Amino acid sequence: MSNPSLLILPGDGIGPEVMAEVRKVIDWFGAKRDMAFDVSEDLVGGCAYDAHGTPLTDETMAKAQEVDAVLLGAVGGPKYDTLDFSVKPERGLLRLRKEMDLYANLRPAQCFDALADFSSLKKDVVAGLDIMIIRELTSGVYFGEPRGVFKEGNERVGINTQRYTESEIARVARSAFELARKRDNKVCSMEKANVMESGVLWRDVVQEIHDAEYPDVELSHMYADAGAMQLTRWPKQFDVIVTDNLFGDLLSDLAAMLTGSLGMLPSASLGAPMANGRPKALYEPVHGSAPDIAGTGKANPIACILSFAMALRYSFDKGDEATRLEDAVNAVLADGLRTADLLGEDGVQPVSTAEMGDAIVAKLDASL
Amino acid sequence: MSNPSLLILPGDGIGPEVMAEVRKVIDWFGAKRDMAFDVSEDLVGGCAYDAHGTPLTDETMAKAQEVDAVLLGAVGGPKYDTLDFSVKPERGLLRLRKEMDLYANLRPAQCFDALADFSSLKKDVVAGLDIMIIRELTSGVYFGEPRGVFKEGNERVGINTQRYTESEIARVARSAFELARKRDNKVCSMEKANVMESGVLWRDVVQEIHDAEYPDVELSHMYADAGAMQLTRWPKQFDVIVTDNLFGDLLSDLAAMLTGSLGMLPSASLGAPMANGRPKALYEPVHGSAPDIAGTGKANPIACILSFAMALRYSFDKGDEATRLEDAVNAVLADGLRTADLLGEDGVQPVSTAEMGDAIVAKLDASL
Ligand SMILES: [Mg+2]
Ligand SMILES: [Mg+2]
Repeated sequence: MSNPSLLILPGDGIGPEVMAEVRKVIDWFGAKRDMAFDVSEDLVGGCAYDAHGTPLTDETMAKAQEVDAVLLGAVGGPKYDTLDFSVKPERGLLRLRKEMDLYANLRPAQCFDALADFSSLKKDVVAGLDIMIIRELTSGVYFGEPRGVFKEGNERVGINTQRYTESEIARVARSAFELARKRDNKVCSMEKANVMESGVLWRDVVQEIHDAEYPDVELSHMYADAGAMQLTRWPKQFDVIVTDNLFGDLLSDLAAMLTGSLGMLPSASLGAPMANGRPKALYEPVHGSAPDIAGTGKANPIACILSFAMALRYSFDKGDEATRLEDAVNAVLADGLRTADLLGEDGVQPVSTAEMGDAIVAKLDASL
Repeated sequence: MSNPSLLILPGDGIGPEVMAEVRKVIDWFGAKRDMAFDVSEDLVGGCAYDAHGTPLTDETMAKAQEVDAVLLGAVGGPKYDTLDFSVKPERGLLRLRKEMDLYANLRPAQCFDALADFSSLKKDVVAGLDIMIIRELTSGVYFGEPRGVFKEGNERVGINTQRYTESEIARVARSAFELARKRDNKVCSMEKANVMESGVLWRDVVQEIHDAEYPDVELSHMYADAGAMQLTRWPKQFDVIVTDNLFGDLLSDLAAMLTGSLGMLPSASLGAPMANGRPKALYEPVHGSAPDIAGTGKANPIACILSFAMALRYSFDKGDEATRLEDAVNAVLADGLRTADLLGEDGVQPVSTAEMGDAIVAKLDASL
């Protein structure tokens, strides 16, 4: 059997330097855990535009469709702000999501004990927090037609359409229930069924899928505005939250901010199973390309490294190895190592991007 | 000149008992500040249904249109859960908002120093917090057509339409700029212009109104998901936030929860100026009818009393008297008086709804 394949797209800004640390981790798993990957690397975003005049070539797109998982760094930068909308760096990422049909966006919000003080919330509210928000990513009001700014009489009208089909809701609901079974077996679905018919359908379909296929999972429903409140008040009440594209956009960012350290947060975007049973998958850190600190060694590689841990868990069914990697990150943080974005405690000297990567690899060694 | 007129609609659950305390305050301003109001009282919600078979009679609706301001308690309760959608208690409130065309929903999020510990956020993050969220209330995706659950092939599709006209955006933007001028002169407008054309129009129109009519006000724009993050991270960076109906629904509740005590928060819903120059106006607490504690003396009357303070400020141009009332509330809290919803500190005995109202009136006396 051939090795599983990974396409690495470091992208722009700090993308290449955080990805260099992920490469160390990938190499470690190959050398020490007998888990070799066939790794290829390519361009996405501004650097792809510079080289080819497009943020994602057809060749790279085709490669992404063929591999077992895509690992992406970050895209964009001020250099590309004046580009036409159609070739902006972000379009490369959107094309990947769309053509791979990555409908389930997994956004964990985890608070590392050593970093609980970084949160604006009280320590007891966030310490040990471990929730997973699943955002529907390929439909809803960001994609529905009709859309646009139109002239009506003598004024303009802005229109977008929230539109969900039963099958779109059903597949992301299944993702949530499957995930919950591997966690604390609880799903909370959020919408605004009290004022939106698309929310009524969302609630009905989630309940139907539950009753027919996942009756063992604890399911609750909450209005999205109450959800925003409850995430703020006592986030540990949740295990898995499933919600639509727009509500998920806000709630996943809100949940991320609860942890206080965006530089730590990974994400996965999953689609339908491929012929080999693995889901179409793209893994990337939540943070952006941070062009202001690119090349200074200040970037935090942890979010990107934890994105690879998600790949181990969700694409390669290596949950134990994913946990090993997450534990290594935890151990490094418990030792007090901090990149520049995590300063705040008195007298701590920051380590560089590479030093953080090396320290995590050393902890992996120590785990054997 | 005749007295300004107030229509009081206590509603259901704890509505009547908190409104009874507001009546004490209204009477105090009549007796001690020479500010007599012509007060009439009527039914809304479940109690109106019980009496007349409708949650709001045409006669009450007509009265609401004629008075200078409407003050509402709360509506709803389990007794009415099985009623047809068209006569549910909430429909009475929605009819008021709709027929009075109350497009600007003012949702202050203020943290009282004495209550800062109730927040899930760190004390320094919320102590002294004083922001105002203005939510567009009569348009957007909760009202746009087409809407519904339709059959398409052999599956259901849920559809709602986000729709904003230029004039709808312009009028609520003006509300925000006017308000900012009386506060810290800063407005932050939130939308998702990066992915929604209705957001692009929102941003453009807010900027145009600013440049043409309010160039003295500091205006910034933020994506709504970043707004949710920033509200959680450091809410004091904001003064006035203006946003659409859906984003405002989530963000105003999120901001309310930052303060940690929903029982304290008032709201105003304002429409266009009437012939006398006063805006159409409805004032109500953010909390609900809390049927579980109705009649037990446990209800906190402060949110409803502070709603009357908003009426003094926004309908009757008595900002100084509004501040006097707010200061009285502050003083009572600083003395340690707590209704049952505000317990948590050791050894504090709760006061009743009426005792809280009396204490606030006593502080008003002391202010003279
Ligand atoms: Mg977002
Ligand atoms: Mg709400």
